[in-house]
Amino acid sequence: MSWRADVLTLFPAMFPGTLGESLAGRALEERKWSLKVTDMRDFGLGRHRAVDDTPFGGGAGMVLRPDVVDEAIGSVADDRPLIFLTPRGAPLTQAKVRELAEGPGTILVCGRFEGIDQRVIEARQGQEISIGDYVLSGGELPALVLLDAVIRLLPGVMGHAESGTEESFSLPLLEYPHYTRPAEWQGHVVPEVLTSGNHAAIAKWRQGQAVAITQNRRPDLYAQYVATGAAAP
Amino acid sequence: MSWRADVLTLFPAMFPGTLGESLAGRALEERKWSLKVTDMRDFGLGRHRAVDDTPFGGGAGMVLRPDVVDEAIGSVADDRPLIFLTPRGAPLTQAKVRELAEGPGTILVCGRFEGIDQRVIEARQGQEISIGDYVLSGGELPALVLLDAVIRLLPGVMGHAESGTEESFSLPLLEYPHYTRPAEWQGHVVPEVLTSGNHAAIAKWRQGQAVAITQNRRPDLYAQYVATGAAAP
Repeated sequence: MSWRADVLTLFPAMFPGTLGESLAGRALEERKWSLKVTDMRDFGLGRHRAVDDTPFGGGAGMVLRPDVVDEAIGSVADDRPLIFLTPRGAPLTQAKVRELAEGPGTILVCGRFEGIDQRVIEARQGQEISIGDYVLSGGELPALVLLDAVIRLLPGVMGHAESGTEESFSLPLLEYPHYTRPAEWQGHVVPEVLTSGNHAAIAKWRQGQAVAITQNRRPDLYAQYVATGAAAP
Repeated sequence: MSWRADVLTLFPAMFPGTLGESLAGRALEERKWSLKVTDMRDFGLGRHRAVDDTPFGGGAGMVLRPDVVDEAIGSVADDRPLIFLTPRGAPLTQAKVRELAEGPGTILVCGRFEGIDQRVIEARQGQEISIGDYVLSGGELPALVLLDAVIRLLPGVMGHAESGTEESFSLPLLEYPHYTRPAEWQGHVVPEVLTSGNHAAIAKWRQGQAVAITQNRRPDLYAQYVATGAAAP
């Protein structure tokens, strides 16, 4: 059975959306994974199918009701990992992406408005995941980001052309810079070592570039890298 | 003149895509911002409109040519900030989002394959930005994420219902948990303080929760928070 994603959202028209246009869309057509989208409003209350209410304790915005979200989850729940996409979550990492790709699939709940009632997140023992430290209008784009990251790792999805980037975050280093033809462009030449044919020298140069760019742009990752003991003495 | 976004991509059908279905889509129809999508393949070389080539120095994957990307940028460039969405970039932050929202717009270049020839990034003095430490199939979803984050901050875009989340990353703290009706759900009651009507106690409880969740899930943010001197003695 192929990898199965369920998405619970108030904006079902957002799926597969942008994801349908590329690698993941082709893989969806080829049934390398499957996607089922559930509109949480179908579980809303009363004539107006209410899904949210004002927050206890006051404050701006609306909060998704625990009973409504719980019913929606109950309609699809099984042993797949349950993930709530919220800005309060643990940061999405490539390690988490790989872990999800090796499992049976996932159930993704997209937050909206101020957030989701905390009781349903705890009662359902969901993981809260964030794709980054910025505020979005909802969890739908984060769900698409997570799916894109996972799906490219599923068996048979990536062609040869894309396969190289798999390693990007295996070591906690940013990638070295890339160069292609023309060898000279507007007076800018490709670094000489790359056209030397000396594979050992190329590998060493690339490693040095990766370390330097990581140290410069991402002191947090660089500290992790040093801690692995992989840094040259 | 409203905020103007240009997107350079090899997958023009991905825009506005998912973004068109929500807040940002409505704001686009209302001309609160504008979006122009340029297919970089229109600047490709020869009969097959080639845009990429193999990397100098060897390795898997293909690299976008500097001459092709430069021509595409030249077709739209002005004084707006030029951003390359790549996994090597500086992490996107809410501060960067706010900075972009206060400016005239942006020009976004979506990476694909192994990446973009580094010479054109440097020659055009672009900023490299990453939305997180995971590998995606291209820069298109990151461009949509960045646009969603910026557009919700543009004047007149956010309704009252969404306005509360504006503050999420003003302080380096994750948000406190949210609760709404019913007050008791499956035996789980809302924290008593939230129904006390004591606004000072509620504010204090929420602050304590925010600090605790940040310390627990995001030691990196917690260290920033302590460094601001805002932590209680």
